[in-house]
Amino acid sequence: MVVVLEKNITEKQLENIIKHLEDFGFAVHKSTGVEQTILGAIGVQPNFDTRKVQILEGVAEVYRITEPFKLASRSFKKENTEIIVDDTKIGGNEIIVMAGPCSVESEEQIMAIAEIVAASGAKILRGGAFKPRTSPYSFQGLGESGLKMLRKAADKFKLKVITEVMEIGQIKLIEEYTDVFQVGARNMQNFSLLKELGKANKPVMLKRGLAATIEDWLMSAEYILSNGNVNVMLCERGIRTFETYTRNTFDLSAIPVVHKRSHLPVIADPSHALGMRDKVIPMARAAVAAGADGIMVEVHHDPEKALSDGPQALFPGQFFDMMKQIRLIAEVIGRKIN
Amino acid sequence: MVVVLEKNITEKQLENIIKHLEDFGFAVHKSTGVEQTILGAIGVQPNFDTRKVQILEGVAEVYRITEPFKLASRSFKKENTEIIVDDTKIGGNEIIVMAGPCSVESEEQIMAIAEIVAASGAKILRGGAFKPRTSPYSFQGLGESGLKMLRKAADKFKLKVITEVMEIGQIKLIEEYTDVFQVGARNMQNFSLLKELGKANKPVMLKRGLAATIEDWLMSAEYILSNGNVNVMLCERGIRTFETYTRNTFDLSAIPVVHKRSHLPVIADPSHALGMRDKVIPMARAAVAAGADGIMVEVHHDPEKALSDGPQALFPGQFFDMMKQIRLIAEVIGRKIN
Amino acid sequence: MVVVLEKNITEKQLENIIKHLEDFGFAVHKSTGVEQTILGAIGVQPNFDTRKVQILEGVAEVYRITEPFKLASRSFKKENTEIIVDDTKIGGNEIIVMAGPCSVESEEQIMAIAEIVAASGAKILRGGAFKPRTSPYSFQGLGESGLKMLRKAADKFKLKVITEVMEIGQIKLIEEYTDVFQVGARNMQNFSLLKELGKANKPVMLKRGLAATIEDWLMSAEYILSNGNVNVMLCERGIRTFETYTRNTFDLSAIPVVHKRSHLPVIADPSHALGMRDKVIPMARAAVAAGADGIMVEVHHDPEKALSDGPQALFPGQFFDMMKQIRLIAEVIGRKIN
Amino acid sequence: MVVVLEKNITEKQLENIIKHLEDFGFAVHKSTGVEQTILGAIGVQPNFDTRKVQILEGVAEVYRITEPFKLASRSFKKENTEIIVDDTKIGGNEIIVMAGPCSVESEEQIMAIAEIVAASGAKILRGGAFKPRTSPYSFQGLGESGLKMLRKAADKFKLKVITEVMEIGQIKLIEEYTDVFQVGARNMQNFSLLKELGKANKPVMLKRGLAATIEDWLMSAEYILSNGNVNVMLCERGIRTFETYTRNTFDLSAIPVVHKRSHLPVIADPSHALGMRDKVIPMARAAVAAGADGIMVEVHHDPEKALSDGPQALFPGQFFDMMKQIRLIAEVIGRKIN
Repeated sequence: MVVVLEKNITEKQLENIIKHLEDFGFAVHKSTGVEQTILGAIGVQPNFDTRKVQILEGVAEVYRITEPFKLASRSFKKENTEIIVDDTKIGGNEIIVMAGPCSVESEEQIMAIAEIVAASGAKILRGGAFKPRTSPYSFQGLGESGLKMLRKAADKFKLKVITEVMEIGQIKLIEEYTDVFQVGARNMQNFSLLKELGKANKPVMLKRGLAATIEDWLMSAEYILSNGNVNVMLCERGIRTFETYTRNTFDLSAIPVVHKRSHLPVIADPSHALGMRDKVIPMARAAVAAGADGIMVEVHHDPEKALSDGPQALFPGQFFDMMKQIRLIAEVIGRKIN
Repeated sequence: MVVVLEKNITEKQLENIIKHLEDFGFAVHKSTGVEQTILGAIGVQPNFDTRKVQILEGVAEVYRITEPFKLASRSFKKENTEIIVDDTKIGGNEIIVMAGPCSVESEEQIMAIAEIVAASGAKILRGGAFKPRTSPYSFQGLGESGLKMLRKAADKFKLKVITEVMEIGQIKLIEEYTDVFQVGARNMQNFSLLKELGKANKPVMLKRGLAATIEDWLMSAEYILSNGNVNVMLCERGIRTFETYTRNTFDLSAIPVVHKRSHLPVIADPSHALGMRDKVIPMARAAVAAGADGIMVEVHHDPEKALSDGPQALFPGQFFDMMKQIRLIAEVIGRKIN
Repeated sequence: MVVVLEKNITEKQLENIIKHLEDFGFAVHKSTGVEQTILGAIGVQPNFDTRKVQILEGVAEVYRITEPFKLASRSFKKENTEIIVDDTKIGGNEIIVMAGPCSVESEEQIMAIAEIVAASGAKILRGGAFKPRTSPYSFQGLGESGLKMLRKAADKFKLKVITEVMEIGQIKLIEEYTDVFQVGARNMQNFSLLKELGKANKPVMLKRGLAATIEDWLMSAEYILSNGNVNVMLCERGIRTFETYTRNTFDLSAIPVVHKRSHLPVIADPSHALGMRDKVIPMARAAVAAGADGIMVEVHHDPEKALSDGPQALFPGQFFDMMKQIRLIAEVIGRKIN
Repeated sequence: MVVVLEKNITEKQLENIIKHLEDFGFAVHKSTGVEQTILGAIGVQPNFDTRKVQILEGVAEVYRITEPFKLASRSFKKENTEIIVDDTKIGGNEIIVMAGPCSVESEEQIMAIAEIVAASGAKILRGGAFKPRTSPYSFQGLGESGLKMLRKAADKFKLKVITEVMEIGQIKLIEEYTDVFQVGARNMQNFSLLKELGKANKPVMLKRGLAATIEDWLMSAEYILSNGNVNVMLCERGIRTFETYTRNTFDLSAIPVVHKRSHLPVIADPSHALGMRDKVIPMARAAVAAGADGIMVEVHHDPEKALSDGPQALFPGQFFDMMKQIRLIAEVIGRKIN
């Protein structure tokens, strides 16, 4: 922590500040300049509440000098985290595609879509059985029977499964059916849920909250990591901005930033970011060009009949076109898509 | 729903749009102007996904014309909701003050603070036993023993209790000790939790999420209301903006807006919005002047030693001063504080 | 400036960083802790681009430790700035009310409104002659003839005048008619205009930009101050947030924050922040309760016929009611309104 | 405009609303549903202030149904606007690269950089002579002598010139030297400047404001277009969000959105959006993949010595690598870069 002192600080105020810092357990170094004096307060307290010092008389500003996350940081672990799901590796040179419907609606539906997904070369089937809907009156998912259909479809077409978990009470059940847990944007700071997923046996994909900074997001990953589950991947799905012509603003800059700050893989989800299928393909291309380790998109064999989020689901033909284009872009940057 | 058509729409596109609307269950009215034609689509589907129409050829814009919340709306219920907690009424002419520490730390601490709170005329004692902290390494609360201390202190000084619930598994336990459940900003869209609180027997105070619009907030209230619990109050505690000189931006405009749109009471929490005690008093005054039905503030008998959020806790003397000032302002607008 | 080094920095990287800092003109102090080393770089370069250091190998973070503004800061000038406009003082104990229409529309209109404004006890008449409208097709103001009408009306009722300047070419003209220049939110970072106003002979009220932080705002004030005009007051008029139920979000927390950081007076404009007259009165009360040095509101003798912004203009009766209420609230906090 | 009526509206209120609408010049169509009645108000008033109706008794909501911009809209002009600057066409199939330093610093500097820019195949040389700096104490540009150097360097290497104009008084001067005017983000709503540029004889590149929606941006373009200058291109350069790990958030979704709503070309500037050179290359690739019509980047022969924005300038080697990669990505989507 660095404490910047007010220019006209009194000797007594300075002593009081130093005493407080020492009481808080810091070693204090003083640097005196012509116009300004600063104190360096060194110690191992990443979560010290700097406002305790900010509020003392004579203090102008206080800066925390350590990132508040540890296990998620690149300085803790230099090499990229690679997450192994059977024969699929997330976070390596290959860019992984996850695709499927918003919600599992019926066995016919998920089978039809799984076939398309597998045919495209994508590796992971997505589909919701428990749906976090903004309105209590919207379709809330099929629950366990949806999970069964999803697993069955994935197995038939040799795909892996990712599906969303919304509460602690669902973890055990979902773990029986899924390969990867998904935590939605609205639960990014549901710390109780994150803690329990830290004790689960399957990898977790943590979506970024609508108004979360990258630091907030990595702090939430830290909750999972510090409880023992090291298989965490992040998913950028758009943030809230003032723009109303798109559902959210797809923050692709987050990809190189996370890669610098953290060793965790980053997936990009253009379907939820954009909300309308005609914008999904250019943004999927852009995500690959920006360095994403994976792409999650919604695809439906009959989007007009989808029970939820149909307007953002790609038609099968669009999905195959997208796969073709992103494969070529992956090559340009020395990566590959199956 | 109103569908604005593109200027150069073809007859075939128009027919297709009307057919879709009718299939979705709407009655369609056409208004043709010199430059533009619009369709009014009337029907009782508050949560219809308007993107299903937006995506059709020939459609320029689509507007939902009904608020997506029902039970929370002023048009559903004209009179203000008044929530009775024994002899205390929230949402009436009296402005209710809730005060106490961020966290319950020990019996001595909560007893000392409860005495101050009671002496000031405030009615409800706040204090966290389960704490949602951004960092997994920060103090997470005393759990059930904290709840016991909180109840004991409140009972001794004839106060009511409000405390935070973070997960479904805690509801039953907390209900034994508290008079009002608090849902924190980060859980505002934890829909699983909200549904279960809709079945609980105690009132719920729902804090506004950091990036939630007022509509989002009322939709979350709708989750509780539609599950049967009509005793819901809202709490404005600051939203995230670009400003960094304050912890959050206290959105006092939300108070008159909520009062127009909804019948639910609105509490204002300047302590969490501002994050530094020197800004709490002017903003508590402003909240009362803006029409808040209650004020929640943090007060501590020894803020410098507080285990969490000490810098935003008022000293007892400041708290008494604040009470004096807000009593006078309440009078100016024809309300009262005990 | 404080430079936090990476944990695994090499000796060579450290030397290179120190050499760069010294070349940039800083004196360097090193503080070595168990886990982390930091460098204090002391020197008088408030606008040094810290990214020049951020980008060096071995640097984890860089923090600027001085506020980038000087003349606007409380540490430069301890006492509140008081701006004298004849017999009216802005920034003293008295809270000044500025009121009038959005635009000057005709002599009859501005005369009728000036009479109302004067009768209420307000001191300054507002009214636009040059209007910055989002659309090129909207009413753009009466220009010089509007200025003449405004001056005439103010003189007749012994009021002072405030009106907006939009470009350098208008300064000389407007200076003949106005007592205070107003710079609108959209021109807050029109640095060319601010520089020229720094050479003008009348005080300037600088409105906060829609997405400006308080630091940005004070930096813009610095442009005027550093060019020689010390009579600068600030005006909070709402910032852009995600909320759509109000035109803008009125950031009343900015008032105590500016008072701590700067010596300049702060005016609050609830009319532009809220955009609808029914929300203006509670927010004017809240602004006074929060400590504003002045209130600017729109009032019109016939708001339904106003050429611009009619819906946010108060009716005369509402305006008189507001004055009554804010006078009482001013007293509660030891201030007064004429 | 669509007017949604309150459910319990009285007959008298309804008549009053209809009368007002007719007085405002609208033709009114009524659609009555089971639960709700709506009025369609048809007429040619794109800038009608809908709050005038919003405020009437019995009105629940009002929606404007026409885009407020006309000349900038795709419905006004179906084909893409192509802007011809001698032998260079902006807005066609070719993606145009604009590159150069932040500021012109000396003849040697701009000559050295122009040589690099030309060698890479880029067509347009950028460089500031008048600089809008947040601080009055920062380098403000060389003025006219900078313009001369820029023109000379461009001519020598057969490049075109783009440079920023900050105020009306500079237009004539800059027009002598530049091929394209640049309007910076902070001047996006400097309407006086935009009007005058509408009368200028050179194309204008309008940068998006830090907190501007795409609609705001197109409205500002409308100011230029409606004053007669049809050669307008837009430039996305990052918007302000809560993120602090990057300078701004690069909104690449804006590219497909603008292409749908407007016929104007869109350039993307990753240097200003990201602010640090290591993030510029992936985001330049992403911008091309997303469909940008041009890329603007900062490059410097010696970035460490740059007088402004050095940390975001590419080294020459990085710039050549970037050109190679974006050429390949352009091919994937059927476009080309020289």
